[in-house]
Amino acid sequence: MGVDSKAIASMKVLPPYLIFLGDAPDRLIAKTGAGIADWAPERCAGQLRLSAGTVDLGLPDMTIEAARAAGVKTLVVGTASPGGAMDDRWLDVFRAALEAGLDIAAGLHIRLNSLGALRALADATGCKLTDLRDPPPGLPIGSGLPRSGHRVLTVGTDCAVGKKYTALALWRALCERGVDADFCATGQTGVLISGRGFAIDSVIGDFMSGAAEVLAPAAGADHWDVIEGQGSLFHPAYAGVSLGLLHGAQPEAVVLCHQAGRDKIAFFDGYPTPALETAIARNLEAARLTSPDCYCAGVSLNTAGLDAAAAEALIAETAARLGLPVIDPVRTGGGAIADRLLQGRGEA
Amino acid sequence: MGVDSKAIASMKVLPPYLIFLGDAPDRLIAKTGAGIADWAPERCAGQLRLSAGTVDLGLPDMTIEAARAAGVKTLVVGTASPGGAMDDRWLDVFRAALEAGLDIAAGLHIRLNSLGALRALADATGCKLTDLRDPPPGLPIGSGLPRSGHRVLTVGTDCAVGKKYTALALWRALCERGVDADFCATGQTGVLISGRGFAIDSVIGDFMSGAAEVLAPAAGADHWDVIEGQGSLFHPAYAGVSLGLLHGAQPEAVVLCHQAGRDKIAFFDGYPTPALETAIARNLEAARLTSPDCYCAGVSLNTAGLDAAAAEALIAETAARLGLPVIDPVRTGGGAIADRLLQGRGEA
Repeated sequence: MGVDSKAIASMKVLPPYLIFLGDAPDRLIAKTGAGIADWAPERCAGQLRLSAGTVDLGLPDMTIEAARAAGVKTLVVGTASPGGAMDDRWLDVFRAALEAGLDIAAGLHIRLNSLGALRALADATGCKLTDLRDPPPGLPIGSGLPRSGHRVLTVGTDCAVGKKYTALALWRALCERGVDADFCATGQTGVLISGRGFAIDSVIGDFMSGAAEVLAPAAGADHWDVIEGQGSLFHPAYAGVSLGLLHGAQPEAVVLCHQAGRDKIAFFDGYPTPALETAIARNLEAARLTSPDCYCAGVSLNTAGLDAAAAEALIAETAARLGLPVIDPVRTGGGAIADRLLQGRGEA
Repeated sequence: MGVDSKAIASMKVLPPYLIFLGDAPDRLIAKTGAGIADWAPERCAGQLRLSAGTVDLGLPDMTIEAARAAGVKTLVVGTASPGGAMDDRWLDVFRAALEAGLDIAAGLHIRLNSLGALRALADATGCKLTDLRDPPPGLPIGSGLPRSGHRVLTVGTDCAVGKKYTALALWRALCERGVDADFCATGQTGVLISGRGFAIDSVIGDFMSGAAEVLAPAAGADHWDVIEGQGSLFHPAYAGVSLGLLHGAQPEAVVLCHQAGRDKIAFFDGYPTPALETAIARNLEAARLTSPDCYCAGVSLNTAGLDAAAAEALIAETAARLGLPVIDPVRTGGGAIADRLLQGRGEA
């Protein structure tokens, strides 16, 4: 089926986690850690902070020693960057973790595996260094072959509009309904939330749709994979990734994600976000290459910038206009779209 | 403009070439070498064959010593593969080339730069080992910003339908008309024909459209870049690459390439090739994200499987049906489409 079992086997990150926060002053800088604490608190044994000013994610503070005693398996770097070069204090923490028998997982630009002394210590202690920006070796090209199981993919009008949160909310709602469902991560925070996967935007072009086939492989007839989307077909830099993921995901349904009020692609002058209707039509047109009956199961609006009344009104108005379930993954959860997915195409 | 000058500087292959053919028995196995000999004979000083049964590209046979004496700069591997492992006789040739002061360029799966002894010898002799499957470091993400100069991109109904030959035929026709034009290669054979570029399908997803911006950068107002397309928007494995290239190329016009009679995507069961009308419409729809006035300047049919009369009839019928210039890059050359490009959009 074009799915490489070795590739799947190599992409796990073992809980429980100790979330390393460095000196990150707020949740934005520590957004990977915050995402894990929000969406997978059961995977988090504690947090390790380097200074009094470091953000508190509400997890127990824990030293490496205490983490070892508590059965922690992996030190997870929960902040984006140690600055330009690797901070010496970070390296001390990493060495202590390896000496305590912990794996380390990070999505840093600088690769853990490129640091010779760290790599040698990991070999000596039998620990694993996982660089989440490096896909596993041996990814196949896409096969395009039909595969079993149900899959839904979140797609967007832009980057950073809520595709991951929407997928997580749908996954939660499906689980609450007694459905056998997985969240399939395609970015580093998502990988740490689910404990499995890799960043699909780091995959070489020729292997993108094959990577999506690996991330959401054939499954049981009643199983649902809720796949985290990336980028946007309307993004001048990243649309190729979005299309490769869309074709490889082979989704039965897509859910369109949009940030209320965002009328331009962020950081790209001259690129408006598409109308929701246009975005739905173009995503379905593309998806139907590999999934001929793909339909849109709903719209997810990130209404964080609106007050409750305005958000509620926008959600209702959008649902009426499009004739589709509309959610906000944080305000409403994913129930309305989960119900639609479980009804199938839901056509009259 | 999102274009990295260091990346551009690192992607040149210097002529004259000595084309190394190993034991390749025919032009199909030696298709890289054959493509260079056909389209850039002026870059080829000679060929080096290992056995009496090796294909003859019609170039002077030459030893490494003779090549050095003739001023050859680069030994170019013109055949796809030495078999599973690197053949010892190949390594002997490569060592002799480096000792004679020649660079080596190859698009082999096994990387020249990964062979320690060869890498050390290249360092010692000051020669360059170019692995055409490895893009240069430092590629930017796409900027999506408008840039100067004229660009035309060949797009396809499938892989291997004639996108490279069509781009070369258009480039030749433009040059014959006195136009300042470049052929912009995006695959390894094309790179060796033009002496510049890299394989875009080896680029990491996030950087594909940025890579296309590097391959065909801003140019003078009268300059034409004729860009070699890759894959197809209708290909279940490679469409993401095609879309990234289409967005980054920012073409003023596209030319649709199709192999006459091919009704299925090669090697992918269940995937028909699209109707020409559909393929044109979908490519324009996608192209207009970054190039709002993009139009289709014509269709290129690979009619190699037809006799002359049938080819002529098909070309005439297709041109009448679509109202566009139709060529075969080998039978007719690119003149009819070059003329249309020089007229601009050519609307009534």
